Amino acid sequence: LSHKPLKKIVLIGSGNVATHLAKQFAEKGFVIRQVYSRTIENARFLALRYNALAINALHEVETDADMYVFSVSDNALFQLVEELKINTGIVLHTSGAIGIDVLKKFKNYGVFYPLQTFSKNIEINFKEVPLLIEANTSENLRIIENLALKFTPYVHNITSEQRHKVHLAAVFACNFTNYMYRISEKILNENNLSFDILKPLILQTAKKIETHLPSHVQTGPAHRNDNTVIEKHLSMLNEQADRALIYKILSEQIKRNNIKNE
Amino acid sequence: LSHKPLKKIVLIGSGNVATHLAKQFAEKGFVIRQVYSRTIENARFLALRYNALAINALHEVETDADMYVFSVSDNALFQLVEELKINTGIVLHTSGAIGIDVLKKFKNYGVFYPLQTFSKNIEINFKEVPLLIEANTSENLRIIENLALKFTPYVHNITSEQRHKVHLAAVFACNFTNYMYRISEKILNENNLSFDILKPLILQTAKKIETHLPSHVQTGPAHRNDNTVIEKHLSMLNEQADRALIYKILSEQIKRNNIKNE
Repeated sequence: LSHKPLKKIVLIGSGNVATHLAKQFAEKGFVIRQVYSRTIENARFLALRYNALAINALHEVETDADMYVFSVSDNALFQLVEELKINTGIVLHTSGAIGIDVLKKFKNYGVFYPLQTFSKNIEINFKEVPLLIEANTSENLRIIENLALKFTPYVHNITSEQRHKVHLAAVFACNFTNYMYRISEKILNENNLSFDILKPLILQTAKKIETHLPSHVQTGPAHRNDNTVIEKHLSMLNEQADRALIYKILSEQIKRNNIKNE
Repeated sequence: LSHKPLKKIVLIGSGNVATHLAKQFAEKGFVIRQVYSRTIENARFLALRYNALAINALHEVETDADMYVFSVSDNALFQLVEELKINTGIVLHTSGAIGIDVLKKFKNYGVFYPLQTFSKNIEINFKEVPLLIEANTSENLRIIENLALKFTPYVHNITSEQRHKVHLAAVFACNFTNYMYRISEKILNENNLSFDILKPLILQTAKKIETHLPSHVQTGPAHRNDNTVIEKHLSMLNEQADRALIYKILSEQIKRNNIKNE
């Protein structure tokens, strides 16, 4: 059984993920035919780079593309799926939090979720990005897997339910972690100290878990049950209710988990 | 004015920081004469590597060393300072959370605080570790600065109060961050998924802030005000009160900060 190669792509969305995917698709020889955004200027900004057509209404979508890729906010996805009327090609979405079934009105569909944090101006090495895929048939799974393997060797075929768990875990490991960085940035700024001083520590904290499980390399006052330091830190934070609350809750949980593990 | 070089060291402590410092001192040609630990076996374990003498009582300390370095828990430091009777040499402690004044009974003293997370079996490149130093006289500051510059170019002469702020910031950026990793590790384990899948994301999250301020690269459902995903995640966490509490508080704070910044 042979397939004609996926070649012509319609991108629905123009945000961070769409921008990074567009670059990858183009580099791999795909032809981006159209870029949709609710805001035509955003669609144009991305479409222009790839000689694609910018559109802001889904009834303008070409119906003979090989692949339709939704990279939009989860809220927008449901509405836009309703509006898309096509009969051919394979339809993908790139969301961690939405099940595959949102696409069930189509004949051929699947999920193509890059597990990474995307900012528009920061380059990503896609060869190191895990791609979590899913498809409505084993035939389509094979097609999506072949596509994914052009991006990275780290391709995982998992269920929607598993993907939701990975996405939840990623909120802790990435989004909440960045918020911890933000608090430390503010503490330093307020005391006329440069955030640069923390960068080696932050990088080492992340590198440690390349070779050791996070639960095995916990350090810090709460881990040592050092209540003198904890009390001192809380008194330093007493003007900052938000930070004090986080400090208190996380320290309590770290202490409790240490006791449990012993 | 010239000084005889610091050469003979007595190490008071045998934990993670003491272990890493001992290795560095030895590599730089210092002679470790004694290693103190309350538990003689721990002292021996470290002392043996450097042909040093293991002791577990501070009255056994040689009184002609050039440098006495305290690397002990903050709680132990106060008591051990009381017990140490010496008249010569310079006395240092390596704690982020304790002021320089704890050493004021000595003639020459200072602080030598490596801003890094140390685990016994994980190698550290000291050239990238910031050293936060302080001394009781400008003379001693010069001596400690010269010592620190043998370790790293990143030497910062800051006050005890500033150091306490850096230490507090480091708890968020390192210890609490690692706790976020631990939660993600558990979520994946409970769902038969490997923690490996998150490693590229964790590394990229840390690398991003090498070139961008954390407050400029926040991503995730709370940052996008995506309440549908937040509610879904909270319902996935409803059997896990600890995690749900953290998810809720951090999401609320991220949302609130985004609104403020707009």
